[in-house]
Amino acid sequence: MKKKILLSGFEAFGGLSTNPTMDIIARTRDWELPNVELHTIILPVVYDECADLLIKEIDKHNPDVVISLGVAVGRAAITPERIGINIQDTAGEGKSGDNRGFHPKDKPIDETGPVGLFSTLPIRKITEDLLEKGIPAQISNSAGTYICNNTLYSILHYIKRNELSIKAGFIHVPASPEMVTNKPQLPSMSIELQTEAVKTIIESIVQ
Amino acid sequence: MKKKILLSGFEAFGGLSTNPTMDIIARTRDWELPNVELHTIILPVVYDECADLLIKEIDKHNPDVVISLGVAVGRAAITPERIGINIQDTAGEGKSGDNRGFHPKDKPIDETGPVGLFSTLPIRKITEDLLEKGIPAQISNSAGTYICNNTLYSILHYIKRNELSIKAGFIHVPASPEMVTNKPQLPSMSIELQTEAVKTIIESIVQ
Amino acid sequence: MKKKILLSGFEAFGGLSTNPTMDIIARTRDWELPNVELHTIILPVVYDECADLLIKEIDKHNPDVVISLGVAVGRAAITPERIGINIQDTAGEGKSGDNRGFHPKDKPIDETGPVGLFSTLPIRKITEDLLEKGIPAQISNSAGTYICNNTLYSILHYIKRNELSIKAGFIHVPASPEMVTNKPQLPSMSIELQTEAVKTIIESIVQ
Amino acid sequence: MKKKILLSGFEAFGGLSTNPTMDIIARTRDWELPNVELHTIILPVVYDECADLLIKEIDKHNPDVVISLGVAVGRAAITPERIGINIQDTAGEGKSGDNRGFHPKDKPIDETGPVGLFSTLPIRKITEDLLEKGIPAQISNSAGTYICNNTLYSILHYIKRNELSIKAGFIHVPASPEMVTNKPQLPSMSIELQTEAVKTIIESIVQ
Repeated sequence: MKKKILLSGFEAFGGLSTNPTMDIIARTRDWELPNVELHTIILPVVYDECADLLIKEIDKHNPDVVISLGVAVGRAAITPERIGINIQDTAGEGKSGDNRGFHPKDKPIDETGPVGLFSTLPIRKITEDLLEKGIPAQISNSAGTYICNNTLYSILHYIKRNELSIKAGFIHVPASPEMVTNKPQLPSMSIELQTEAVKTIIESIVQ
Repeated sequence: MKKKILLSGFEAFGGLSTNPTMDIIARTRDWELPNVELHTIILPVVYDECADLLIKEIDKHNPDVVISLGVAVGRAAITPERIGINIQDTAGEGKSGDNRGFHPKDKPIDETGPVGLFSTLPIRKITEDLLEKGIPAQISNSAGTYICNNTLYSILHYIKRNELSIKAGFIHVPASPEMVTNKPQLPSMSIELQTEAVKTIIESIVQ
Repeated sequence: MKKKILLSGFEAFGGLSTNPTMDIIARTRDWELPNVELHTIILPVVYDECADLLIKEIDKHNPDVVISLGVAVGRAAITPERIGINIQDTAGEGKSGDNRGFHPKDKPIDETGPVGLFSTLPIRKITEDLLEKGIPAQISNSAGTYICNNTLYSILHYIKRNELSIKAGFIHVPASPEMVTNKPQLPSMSIELQTEAVKTIIESIVQ
Repeated sequence: MKKKILLSGFEAFGGLSTNPTMDIIARTRDWELPNVELHTIILPVVYDECADLLIKEIDKHNPDVVISLGVAVGRAAITPERIGINIQDTAGEGKSGDNRGFHPKDKPIDETGPVGLFSTLPIRKITEDLLEKGIPAQISNSAGTYICNNTLYSILHYIKRNELSIKAGFIHVPASPEMVTNKPQLPSMSIELQTEAVKTIIESIVQ
């Protein structure tokens, strides 16, 4: 039987016109994954909406696995996240808030939620499978305190609260080359290699 | 009434003969903090012992506040940690295990413990007070998965399990200049400034 | 009339089995550049031989342009070099010497040569053309003091001494993804994008 | 007989109110160096004036040694420069020009001057003496293409053209901690350690 996978990316932010995760998702149309039924969605970079929209898709498709993708400018490798934490914070990072201008500081995502929730994706296997293919990868122990962490924590919390058997997690990808042409000291990864990485991750999970 | 503060550092590791946190603690003797009763201890870089020894000191002194210091080679600023997570992992970081050669991989610290526990130190106020003094500082969202995180998580868990009213947390400091003379691209901070930072942190907590 | 271009890469070094510049040169076979007669060569990572072999090829083909490629592990962008300097030095960089074990320290390449020689490639135009294509690029003001600088300086010196009208210069490329899988914090660039960059550079020069 | 040393720093730039090299020079008053007659000067961050003013001081004092200090934000170690190059360039580095708004691009400092000139300070001995004292240090092969390189090249050229027997060179120092409090990922070095480093450099040269 086919595995149902829900794959999310994010819309552009920070004054850019695109986001590498949008480009990756656009290319999933070309994939042939015989054992996978793939659903995709692009989420808004808005604290209050990103998780809600993803949860709607979960309710609609009832997937086996949810993989959320986000870009981490400054990172050089594909980084499966280990943990989502119960905090929203854009202070002290020179960040200008989300795409609605919301600018939280040391604020819990859920006042009554647990401090942290572990990704339920096989992050070690994913990382090893990526490295075997020659794709730089490393487990990350912090998804930050911005929209990416917010999405990760919220989804894991929703699944836990509702005792669903869905596996879920978050994968950070590097900037695309286009994003760093005016900051040429920053690392990047081509969309082709990022796309291959995401395909590898899905195969790693399905196997 | 004086506040009782227990301040811990770590012994040397990684083939080095000292650790900046040892040097900082050696200099606390010169401090005059009228409202503080300061106790200090140097912990072993051993997963199984670091927290136990600190817990013994907690039981002995019954402090109001526990501040653990550790060095984070590669960081340029004083970084109060936000969270300790329930994991021991030395894989994929080129690390050689602890000072006893123990080399865990994706192992829970406590099979039945929560995923994460937040520092109960006033990390935002500490960071702002350091910056006001011109000392580089930033809240960190990951204490790693090595001895430092192990100590932070274990102490917070002990305090929570036993319903103690002790505030506790972990502060990472940069390498000392001596540690990076053979890797001159790595950031460092002089022991004098690190010591001033730790004194500032204590004043920030006591106020 | 076709422009004759001599393009050089380097053999593997540092215990690796390949070098991205070898991979780029292997892919030039697929190029269709109507106005270019392209010759390629792989040079040894040996101070005493790298330039001599390239000079032999210059004498043999009498090219209009010589472009030497080398890898700069740690750089994230394509970096056309501005200058070659009259020094061989492997001290203080943790380098183990060349592929013959030669380990010079603050040694002139040519006791009677000038201190520095500027690349005669249009490095500003090249950089701007790469950026326009979305490929991270930046002029570099130091080719180091290792084999790459040695090749750059020696070729420029040979051309100057012999009053040849050949344009010549050096382009550093980032590590390939495969080279950094065990150091996932280091930047890399896919061979596909590196190859596109080198093709863009040739077009930029020929135009 | 005493050695006459001329030590220069720079005024503030980039919207800052001070420059670590000003602070170092302010502290030279406290030094006791029995074999040294020390003269100091603060130079303007202006392409057209920085070297001229330093040359006036050379003519006035006829020193044995000229040491110019400048700050290199982003570097973690004391870096004696090996070479000055005949170029003024502020393009592609996000720089806003000098303190007069002059914004050169790939412009020679001196149309008829040599491409490069080596520092005549004992940069290897200086580096080794700093490291021996536990101060991070490394020879740098590029002083950039901004005011610092402009000063280095111009002074070396002046000394060479006039066949003076003065030793001269440039030392880059890291940012001070105060300069990076709002960019806590950038390395810094305390003014105390920077001052000790400069004193060590003078002793290294005088010996």
